[in-house]
Amino acid sequence: MRPEVDVAVVLADAFPNYSICGLPFYVSGETGDWRQLAHRTEFPGIELLCNRVAESIDVGRKVVIIRTPEAITQTLAYDKLIIATGAKPLIPDVPGIEHVHPLHTMGDSFTVHEKVTSGKVRRAAVVGVGYIGVEMADALTHRGIEVELVGRSRSVLPTVDPEIGAVIREQLESRNVRVLTGIEIERIRRTDGGLALDGTGGLASTVDLIVWATGVSPASDVARSAGIDTGIRGACKVTRRMETNLPDVYAAGDCVETWHRVLQTYLWLPLGTTAHKQGRVAGENAVGGDAEFAGALGTQVVKVFDLAIARTGLLDHEAKAAGFSPLTSYAEPYDHKAYYPSAEKLHIRVTGDALSGKLLGAQIAGNWKAEVAKRIDVFATALFHQMDVDEMNALDLSYTPPLGSPWDAVQIAAQAWTATQLSVGKRRQENR
Amino acid sequence: MRPEVDVAVVLADAFPNYSICGLPFYVSGETGDWRQLAHRTEFPGIELLCNRVAESIDVGRKVVIIRTPEAITQTLAYDKLIIATGAKPLIPDVPGIEHVHPLHTMGDSFTVHEKVTSGKVRRAAVVGVGYIGVEMADALTHRGIEVELVGRSRSVLPTVDPEIGAVIREQLESRNVRVLTGIEIERIRRTDGGLALDGTGGLASTVDLIVWATGVSPASDVARSAGIDTGIRGACKVTRRMETNLPDVYAAGDCVETWHRVLQTYLWLPLGTTAHKQGRVAGENAVGGDAEFAGALGTQVVKVFDLAIARTGLLDHEAKAAGFSPLTSYAEPYDHKAYYPSAEKLHIRVTGDALSGKLLGAQIAGNWKAEVAKRIDVFATALFHQMDVDEMNALDLSYTPPLGSPWDAVQIAAQAWTATQLSVGKRRQENR
Repeated sequence: MRPEVDVAVVLADAFPNYSICGLPFYVSGETGDWRQLAHRTEFPGIELLCNRVAESIDVGRKVVIIRTPEAITQTLAYDKLIIATGAKPLIPDVPGIEHVHPLHTMGDSFTVHEKVTSGKVRRAAVVGVGYIGVEMADALTHRGIEVELVGRSRSVLPTVDPEIGAVIREQLESRNVRVLTGIEIERIRRTDGGLALDGTGGLASTVDLIVWATGVSPASDVARSAGIDTGIRGACKVTRRMETNLPDVYAAGDCVETWHRVLQTYLWLPLGTTAHKQGRVAGENAVGGDAEFAGALGTQVVKVFDLAIARTGLLDHEAKAAGFSPLTSYAEPYDHKAYYPSAEKLHIRVTGDALSGKLLGAQIAGNWKAEVAKRIDVFATALFHQMDVDEMNALDLSYTPPLGSPWDAVQIAAQAWTATQLSVGKRRQENR
Repeated sequence: MRPEVDVAVVLADAFPNYSICGLPFYVSGETGDWRQLAHRTEFPGIELLCNRVAESIDVGRKVVIIRTPEAITQTLAYDKLIIATGAKPLIPDVPGIEHVHPLHTMGDSFTVHEKVTSGKVRRAAVVGVGYIGVEMADALTHRGIEVELVGRSRSVLPTVDPEIGAVIREQLESRNVRVLTGIEIERIRRTDGGLALDGTGGLASTVDLIVWATGVSPASDVARSAGIDTGIRGACKVTRRMETNLPDVYAAGDCVETWHRVLQTYLWLPLGTTAHKQGRVAGENAVGGDAEFAGALGTQVVKVFDLAIARTGLLDHEAKAAGFSPLTSYAEPYDHKAYYPSAEKLHIRVTGDALSGKLLGAQIAGNWKAEVAKRIDVFATALFHQMDVDEMNALDLSYTPPLGSPWDAVQIAAQAWTATQLSVGKRRQENR
């Protein structure tokens, strides 16, 4: 807290503090009132300028040019500026695309919410098989709507390996979601029966609602116009202190490139957790602090029906592309002792470097009550500290039969990796 | 696997591989068949010598002297010996103590199981408010038995702070367990109405069954007689390679002193997780390997009804006794976003060193489905790597609204610690 600093926040809509990650749960009805999505309602010491679009930045005069709802142009002077303009949905140029609904802003979710509660939506298509896509398939099913999940990639949730994707697909299909992958949408038409969706592979569906969730791109236009250097997919280039190339201008969140701790390079990796950390670093430095972003690992988790799917670090192919010698193992340990009721099998893939023995990444899928999320966090914490896979057996993890094993599932998975490494090494020697 | 090594295991009873931590669940009925407690039924390459008591070790001749069930004395020669004799229940010299039941061996649990399923036990006393005591209070309640939990210490589960103990007491009492602390048992008598239990503080109860769970001590008699140096509470002294002072004799598990990673000294810390790790180190070194025990953190978790209670590292008073300048904070974050159903408040205490900022320990109590166990494991992994409390905010942990927050509960707790440290520092400066 630096009470001598005047802070103003300029935002384009009326919702200064809503959880974008919560939108699927508002649509599903699990979160009854949208107001719950904004956990903070008071902003002491912060001037909120809602419904104002930051149109440009005059770096010479150190002002932001703002347009009000009445289309009046104002200027806001700054000593230090933080750009946190986030991301925007990727909507391709397909005939009839005006009929689809993204799910990115509160406005979007009000529209979709109204439709799904109108009683008029019996069938829906969700286009996109990433995080938002699978969450929306769950949410709409929760509303009693028949769902078709359509995606371009060959497996569901391409941010995890196809083997884990297959587990998710099975879960979706067990809840009657029709999963169609490897399909490109070519045309959307309004017909008498509803919205007709045509695509490659003979896709010809008719639905009452189309939710579009094929990803986002950095919202960096204002920054770029002001002279900020941009890089991957147009995201702002920043230092690990979250400084841009312009004096006194910082940037953070989905609109910037993110330092990756394992790759030791920048990526574009739009995640809420990363945005929070970067925002904190930018804020501290803007008021004279000395903070540095420690780097992201791409740790993520998503819940789909009864399943949680989580990852941290690199997938095998990402590690290979980065010049590592990755080896990925698979194990199916129980989350807790099988003699205690409700033990659940976890699907765990561990990726490590076959030469150095270093942990590179991990993926887990399993029942969402089986501590999948915090188990990936044990891997993430190990990865933060550049542990060897085998060294994970030295971690003193908790155990009681209803919640674990003397070697926790993450350690059983680490042991499986070491066994795989030994057997591959042996095969290589034999082949010499 | 070293197939050229002959391995023989000498064990005093008929159960080579049962989960001692699972006994309460067999008593409760949650684990229906005791055979489930032994997850391994085949031991390829291992000669099992069951029902044989290792009576002494002749170090000069390198043999173990064994007594068979028929009271025949045999000798077993060794090149390398691993002593893993575990612990034995502490049963004090109180009049009438022969009426109580410990819960340590399969034999003990058969006896208690028979009693609780006989229909003749309406009321039971559990003496001891440690891990086994609270688990047994839960287990007997599960059987419909009225339970009285009696302990010498002032708070329940003295291995966590009294503030967390109060949360456990509340949980026990909400399930109608009568909790009596600060009480010393003085006498047990068989009366017409059952077993009369007299103690300090005016304790005068009559019950049908008394389970005794006041702790254990190292079972190191055979080792000591053979000339092995012993230390704390009679536990065998070992190196971090699990070597004793005798050539070719290793020791591991509850019968040895354990290297503590934070304290950088030896303690007696009997835990299954630690025993597994030490056994692995001893086994590897015995066959010519080069392994070292990385040290324990005392990470533990226990489930009591709907509550999981976990700790890692040092409590405030333990840290003070070890010469640290501990500061302990308290936070009550939700396990996941409050707008998603069934969010649970976690009680988190973080202990750090006020001078160095280093994490020293953490304790969590909360609903057992709220990822308490694996959250303590995130703290344990951080502690393994000597992290600063504040540095925990840099960890890239997973987030989805049903399972976490953008700053995970462990990070919110770390932030509370830093805030406490700042406010204490400010108060100190003002008082100068």
